[in-house]
Amino acid sequence: MSEQYERMWEGLGLDLGAHDALLEVLGKGYQDIYLAQKNRPEAMAYFDFVMSEVHGLRIRELLDEKAAGRKVIGSFCVFVPEEIVRAADATLVGLCTGADFAMEEVEKLLPRNTCSLIKSAFGFKLGKVCPYIEASDMLVGENTCDGKKKSFETLKDLVSKFHIMDIPQMKSVEGRALLKAEYLRFKEAVEKLTGITIDAGRLKKGIEIVNNKRKAIHRLASLRKANPVPISGLDALLVNQVYFYDDPARFTDSVNKICDELEVRIEKNEGVVPETSPRILLSGCPMAVPNWKLPWIIETCGAVIVGEESCVGERGTRNLTDDTGGTVDELMEAIVDRYCKVDCAIFTPNPDRFEHIVEMFEQYQADGVIHYSLQFCQPYLMESMPVEKALEAKNIPTLRIETDYSLEDVGQLKTRVEAFLEMVK
Amino acid sequence: MSEQYERMWEGLGLDLGAHDALLEVLGKGYQDIYLAQKNRPEAMAYFDFVMSEVHGLRIRELLDEKAAGRKVIGSFCVFVPEEIVRAADATLVGLCTGADFAMEEVEKLLPRNTCSLIKSAFGFKLGKVCPYIEASDMLVGENTCDGKKKSFETLKDLVSKFHIMDIPQMKSVEGRALLKAEYLRFKEAVEKLTGITIDAGRLKKGIEIVNNKRKAIHRLASLRKANPVPISGLDALLVNQVYFYDDPARFTDSVNKICDELEVRIEKNEGVVPETSPRILLSGCPMAVPNWKLPWIIETCGAVIVGEESCVGERGTRNLTDDTGGTVDELMEAIVDRYCKVDCAIFTPNPDRFEHIVEMFEQYQADGVIHYSLQFCQPYLMESMPVEKALEAKNIPTLRIETDYSLEDVGQLKTRVEAFLEMVK
Repeated sequence: MSEQYERMWEGLGLDLGAHDALLEVLGKGYQDIYLAQKNRPEAMAYFDFVMSEVHGLRIRELLDEKAAGRKVIGSFCVFVPEEIVRAADATLVGLCTGADFAMEEVEKLLPRNTCSLIKSAFGFKLGKVCPYIEASDMLVGENTCDGKKKSFETLKDLVSKFHIMDIPQMKSVEGRALLKAEYLRFKEAVEKLTGITIDAGRLKKGIEIVNNKRKAIHRLASLRKANPVPISGLDALLVNQVYFYDDPARFTDSVNKICDELEVRIEKNEGVVPETSPRILLSGCPMAVPNWKLPWIIETCGAVIVGEESCVGERGTRNLTDDTGGTVDELMEAIVDRYCKVDCAIFTPNPDRFEHIVEMFEQYQADGVIHYSLQFCQPYLMESMPVEKALEAKNIPTLRIETDYSLEDVGQLKTRVEAFLEMVK
Repeated sequence: MSEQYERMWEGLGLDLGAHDALLEVLGKGYQDIYLAQKNRPEAMAYFDFVMSEVHGLRIRELLDEKAAGRKVIGSFCVFVPEEIVRAADATLVGLCTGADFAMEEVEKLLPRNTCSLIKSAFGFKLGKVCPYIEASDMLVGENTCDGKKKSFETLKDLVSKFHIMDIPQMKSVEGRALLKAEYLRFKEAVEKLTGITIDAGRLKKGIEIVNNKRKAIHRLASLRKANPVPISGLDALLVNQVYFYDDPARFTDSVNKICDELEVRIEKNEGVVPETSPRILLSGCPMAVPNWKLPWIIETCGAVIVGEESCVGERGTRNLTDDTGGTVDELMEAIVDRYCKVDCAIFTPNPDRFEHIVEMFEQYQADGVIHYSLQFCQPYLMESMPVEKALEAKNIPTLRIETDYSLEDVGQLKTRVEAFLEMVK
């Protein structure tokens, strides 16, 4: 696709040579990990197409939107309320991360002991290989973990427009007030950027668009409770990843099409893997494209992932936003309520997450939990220890994995996962 | 001193064998690092005595206070307002950390990639060797960095009474409101613990006690501007460390006695080291007793530390609390204002710290800055990179050190410090 889009990428200031190299690696990875799977739902073809055009057609669409006067906002986190962005006819996109790039440049700006996700976001920017960040009219950074919070102080100087959003550490009265103040400030920033005043009607529409995406994802998640499970964890993860990039209405339709197909499979008792395959719940840090290493290891070891307790997964999408309010303030309150339920490990204490993992384990009929932490991600690493204890107290087999984006530990991880799978089933 | 206090330590539930071993190592370290120094001020004898009795006489005093109905509150951070504690006739003590202890037990509860300070605090508790934590009626944990915030979820179950204090991440209107709400909640907790209602008179008195400690420290700091400098950095650091343990009035007197002596030295142009010794400003993470490794390396390499931009140092003590208010609310506002000025790296952005480092460099006539980060301390590690850039832009020689509490890297650090010192002077 290089030739077709070369001028577009050049216009965005990408490093064409480096970008070509990246696309080649991505394409090869997708081939080996995704297309090598057997028995995939036919409707996944749409997602294969999306991935093949993730730096091409989708970017062209965003640039067309921009040419028509719409704005593009880039984000790193599920705490950035897409409802508000959609209310202003703008588009929210998740920014590139998920693979090591330009690490030598990155380590001039960030400590070596920084998590892969943050380093990767910097690498894509410094290496000039992320068309999403270059196409964005504004970036939003949120004060979640120390790593992101402090690294944004450097990132803000590398881009043209950066909006910092403060996030509470406790779900207290003051914490909620802070989140509300910050969401109101974000609404103002979006209004200023787009020139559109967000009224109740627009906000209601924005909530509807995002809720529809979530409802489609809920439907997909629910079908994974079946045994045999009708879709692989890798494919379901991809759907959850594309959630952050794609046009919302088209995405919603495409997920529903997969669900139609999966319902037929379930009726025929057809699984993507045999009924006897160990069913794994994956819990922990978010997995951005193309960070498929651990799910790929788990599923090529003969297990199947039936749910993701993750920001790229159920933590990010499970709660809908109440759209029954009649005024901007009522709807903003509903948005704040909705996001206050997100049980990220940055919160202290974070009991909802413990309960949610157990609930998912039971609902998805899982045989074991694999907890995934990025190395140096203190919130999830710290929380993984009490999570493991809480799960083991309920006799839920649990494996804690700490890794990064490199492929050096694939052999070691495979050995640990295999040993775990033998134990759970 | 073991025999004299054995029953007391036993009563506190200490592991006597392990505690004896710890005291032996501490005593040996103090001998080698502190008592081996030449040309020390005579008034440091008080601090030598304090250190020799840090687990003995001082604990006896605290237990005597408790027997008389007073309460002891333990803290890990300069954000816990001592003014409020003193207003209720209670005593605030800094808790043990600064050395690796019981690491095998610690790593069952915390990730290996946790900073030494946090691991050490757990180690002293799990190893049953910290009489301060055992003598405390209440511990206060503050949500500063991710590491402390999340580890407190585990620590709270290891002690009898734990008070969590939320801390903002930004110095915004909402951030300040959060700190005020949390300080009011802390005041209530202290009132409940002590049975004492804190009125304006008590709060004024509490502010006065703590301000007096700070003023004595300011006087000491100011005398270090002289060249030749009249006191070693190690001795000044010890004074800053004892600040967290000692009886405030006695501490204030003892610091002022050193200052009297240093003023005579300055008048006679007498230094603790030759005038030509490189003058170093130390900046970064706090250094708790007995974490003297880096200052000891710097000063045995022939340099002298003239200031500490640290929580155990000027970041923690430089601001006084305004005591002119007439009501509890006015005084609480003054306390909030005072602590809002602390420029810890957990805040984003944190421009005051950059300015303060430059200001200290100039005021103390330093020749270079050594920035000290604990490994895995994300806020200070992240901030050290823009700090280095900002200092180098002003032609201030800067060395960034990342280390932990082990002694394995002493040789390597010595080599780096020596090379740096050759460069600065």
